[in-house]
Amino acid sequence: MSNLNIDADRLWDSLMKTAEIGGTSDGGIARLTLSDDDRRVRDWLAGECAALGMSLIVDEVGNMFATRPGRRADLPAIAMGSHLDTQPTGGKFDGVLGVLAALEVIRTLDAAGFQTEAPLMLVNWTNEEGSRFSPAMLGSGIWAGVYDRAYGDARADARGDLFGECLDRIGYRGAAPAGSVRFGAMFELHIEQGPILEAEGIQIGVVQGIQGMRWFELVLTGTAAHTGSTPMGMRQNALLGMARVIEGIDRIAKAHPDAVGTIGYLGISPNSHNVIPGEVRGTIDLRDPSDATLDQMEAAVAALVREVAAEVGLEYRLEQISRTAPVIFDPGCIASVRAGAQAAGYSTRDIISGAGHDAAHTAMVVPTTMIFVPCAGGLSHNPAESTLPEECAAGATVLLEAVLDHDRRMAEALAGVGA
Amino acid sequence: MSNLNIDADRLWDSLMKTAEIGGTSDGGIARLTLSDDDRRVRDWLAGECAALGMSLIVDEVGNMFATRPGRRADLPAIAMGSHLDTQPTGGKFDGVLGVLAALEVIRTLDAAGFQTEAPLMLVNWTNEEGSRFSPAMLGSGIWAGVYDRAYGDARADARGDLFGECLDRIGYRGAAPAGSVRFGAMFELHIEQGPILEAEGIQIGVVQGIQGMRWFELVLTGTAAHTGSTPMGMRQNALLGMARVIEGIDRIAKAHPDAVGTIGYLGISPNSHNVIPGEVRGTIDLRDPSDATLDQMEAAVAALVREVAAEVGLEYRLEQISRTAPVIFDPGCIASVRAGAQAAGYSTRDIISGAGHDAAHTAMVVPTTMIFVPCAGGLSHNPAESTLPEECAAGATVLLEAVLDHDRRMAEALAGVGA
Repeated sequence: MSNLNIDADRLWDSLMKTAEIGGTSDGGIARLTLSDDDRRVRDWLAGECAALGMSLIVDEVGNMFATRPGRRADLPAIAMGSHLDTQPTGGKFDGVLGVLAALEVIRTLDAAGFQTEAPLMLVNWTNEEGSRFSPAMLGSGIWAGVYDRAYGDARADARGDLFGECLDRIGYRGAAPAGSVRFGAMFELHIEQGPILEAEGIQIGVVQGIQGMRWFELVLTGTAAHTGSTPMGMRQNALLGMARVIEGIDRIAKAHPDAVGTIGYLGISPNSHNVIPGEVRGTIDLRDPSDATLDQMEAAVAALVREVAAEVGLEYRLEQISRTAPVIFDPGCIASVRAGAQAAGYSTRDIISGAGHDAAHTAMVVPTTMIFVPCAGGLSHNPAESTLPEECAAGATVLLEAVLDHDRRMAEALAGVGA
Repeated sequence: MSNLNIDADRLWDSLMKTAEIGGTSDGGIARLTLSDDDRRVRDWLAGECAALGMSLIVDEVGNMFATRPGRRADLPAIAMGSHLDTQPTGGKFDGVLGVLAALEVIRTLDAAGFQTEAPLMLVNWTNEEGSRFSPAMLGSGIWAGVYDRAYGDARADARGDLFGECLDRIGYRGAAPAGSVRFGAMFELHIEQGPILEAEGIQIGVVQGIQGMRWFELVLTGTAAHTGSTPMGMRQNALLGMARVIEGIDRIAKAHPDAVGTIGYLGISPNSHNVIPGEVRGTIDLRDPSDATLDQMEAAVAALVREVAAEVGLEYRLEQISRTAPVIFDPGCIASVRAGAQAAGYSTRDIISGAGHDAAHTAMVVPTTMIFVPCAGGLSHNPAESTLPEECAAGATVLLEAVLDHDRRMAEALAGVGA
């Protein structure tokens, strides 16, 4: 471990200070991407980076990259960061922590006069949340070549305003082509947005990857009929069928240790107290770190639906509406996080991210991993989102130590190659 | 059996003619109670009754009672009828058949010059449907003393128009106090509004009574959480709990031969694709002809909900929101229907009404029963509601024969008492 110390109070002060930009009376933040508040927080960040002597590049979709030189200009930068935009009912930590902890890492190095071998880069991705402009993780997606700039510019919000116009309006359309800003590795610190670390009393989640996700729309069609005059034996009750599917999805997910499976949305027709539902739609959400497991789950769901429809006397339509491959993070980056956390004396556990992150996009291009810290009750996208000052500082400390570890390893490896 | 013959064509012509009053382009009727179309069909009915020499009394809530004298003025009238109002998306038979078949009975007796011992009375009840002014079966309810006139007058429709004002506006506020028009028995012919008779190929349902009904609101409360980042073992999924309750209600109802049990309505919060539902509300609808069975079912539901909530880790609130006692029809009236149907050579089966009817109110005051005829697919409250001309005629024939049987029995019984 380094002899460097994150300043927990300074980090917390930055979190609380930026939380005022778009802050809501209930303690949350409503700082939608490309809003005036997004411009304000970007201006603040640019100012802090400039004060630290970092050079800022903004790319053509508003992603911000601030670089602190290393000893060697031939090494690719090690990137740290996340996003400063929030949900309309966002909390103070989702995304923000990853950017401000990166800033705290730079401040700590500056205060100690410590220079890394490789340059360090602080990144703020545009439109991670996707709540104003769909899809989510748009800035990192364009950076990674998943989408192109024209696609991004044409995204419209609920009012019909376009992403490109809003980006121009807040003055964050940079000159650099989106994929042209390169770095050699990415470390993203984030709150877990789930309940595991808190429940187990673990300080640091060593993130192994991001679950693959498959979404299906299921439509079950029976016969709408009077609840009083239709005997039990003469019903085609679409909601009874969906109830069995809900139970079956739960059973299928529980059969795999890392899987989750959920129906969170139902559309019921006619949804009336005294009418047997004639048609019910639902969205099935299956996630697992392994595509092979997802294949098994998908087959089990198809068999389940077929069986339930036959039992209850229903027609059905089951259609995949979305599919995201699992992301497996870089073993070297993961090793740096584990080493950093252990050196700093924090308890750790391996964890899989159930939510999507910009790191899923950077992992397509460069070695990447994430660091998770607990959040109270697993609550996120909520003004009550809560991570303690010492938990934030622990995350920033692990980020610092992981980056230094990665820097050492890279320099050693290159020295080895050169020898 | 009498040697009288219902005129199937004349009955069908009346059905098709009145179906034009409020008729919709899809073959249904939208003839809401106390609308201009309701006034037109009432005017038509009053004209037909006058043409048959019947005397019409309209009571203070618009119920219409047209009387054909019998040989003996000391006998109470035998009533036949139903309602001429429809749902907004009503069909051509629900209610209408019972009134027009009663008219056809009178026409048949007139054509044959047949006079009954007791007077016969044709009844058209106001606001059976309840789709404009809640509650349903309001006119018969006020007649039976379940509600009073002031309560009825103050019912408001969705536009805020009051029942009493609308009744005055169409000119059908009669002078007779609601309960003052008396009769000695009631026979209501109605379409089944269920699938049993059609499925079994039976022509006439000999209705034994009306199911008792108990409605409950169930609120299950768990924890809304991210579908991706919340492991299966750490969930309090309110929709999973409701799925188990839906399945359990189905099982509980199927344990009793005449019972039905349904959840037709759910309110899911937040009802979002990627959020585990934190709260789900549902309405539980239990029906059975026996209060003792309903007591058992209610206890089973309470145990089910308690058990499911404990399994899934949910809080719950289970509250009775409505309760209607079972109605048992008069054995003498039922015997007359059975005798009439058998004499006419129709296949019959005993049946329990799953829907409410005005007959439930008259049964509180006088011997009452109902006669059911099939409707295609059990479909009702739908423009596609369909009963064949010969099925309508069969119903009218049984109504005629049942009324004549009842008339004979009453006269014989009174003669016996007098002897």
